[in-house]
Amino acid sequence: MEVVDNYLNEAFNEAFYTVRNNVGGPFGAIVVMNGKVIGKGGNQVSSQNDPTAHAEIVAIREACRKIGNFDLTGAILYATCEPCPMCLSAIYWANIQSVYYCSTRHDAASIGFKDYHIYEELNLLPEQRKISFRQIDNPLALELFKEWTEKTDKTLY
Amino acid sequence: MEVVDNYLNEAFNEAFYTVRNNVGGPFGAIVVMNGKVIGKGGNQVSSQNDPTAHAEIVAIREACRKIGNFDLTGAILYATCEPCPMCLSAIYWANIQSVYYCSTRHDAASIGFKDYHIYEELNLLPEQRKISFRQIDNPLALELFKEWTEKTDKTLY
Repeated sequence: MEVVDNYLNEAFNEAFYTVRNNVGGPFGAIVVMNGKVIGKGGNQVSSQNDPTAHAEIVAIREACRKIGNFDLTGAILYATCEPCPMCLSAIYWANIQSVYYCSTRHDAASIGFKDYHIYEELNLLPEQRKISFRQIDNPLALELFKEWTEKTDKTLY
Repeated sequence: MEVVDNYLNEAFNEAFYTVRNNVGGPFGAIVVMNGKVIGKGGNQVSSQNDPTAHAEIVAIREACRKIGNFDLTGAILYATCEPCPMCLSAIYWANIQSVYYCSTRHDAASIGFKDYHIYEELNLLPEQRKISFRQIDNPLALELFKEWTEKTDKTLY
């Protein structure tokens, strides 16, 4: 497990830098492919005014820029904390192979972050959530998906 | 509901543009605050090589840039399709007030997108998922959160 610990320590370096330089919250992440770090970063929410700039998203976006592809099949992600549902889903969309993390969603909740709260909300029916989600019928919905299905030069992801 | 329908139609305009110009998948979104559109966009995954560039994320990031804040309290998001768990979580992190959408996660699955699959995976224990998630103890985890807790000039989000 020495390799895993070393990469996790690199993720912690990102997180400590982030906290000490007021870049964002106390989180860091590293993306590794074929034994090479291809993306890394800390949380940048407050400095970038971007609520989606979590460490894992920052590292995934950098990795994709580096290899020029939205598909990170075979990559491993190391994160200082359990990914929130946003980052977990980004990991699925990027086809990352496996994830190692240290703190949990409960640890994050204990210092004031709402990762655990969002995990709970996701399991509720849209109309039961704290944020109102309403489905509205629109004839364009079917038309749009039909156009996509029939499109012959599309890029799937 | 005329206002809601009008904003949803604007989101569909973004999505049709996106499909017809090979920008990305068939999805669009609009962020409205105080009756003004402050962010909009279509999916840009394939053209930007960014697996996180879903329409909702693109629109939220643009809205935050526009108002210079990571907090969109009071904003309403209109999306052509039910947000995937990544986008749903981003909506929580951005403190968006309510969401209107047309197609569902099941409609998206029927044309080959894995939104529904990710919703299912989120409910599994980390060790039961298709992507392996492993928690590793590290003494830096506690140290990092302690440093954050004791930091007096931090920006909370």
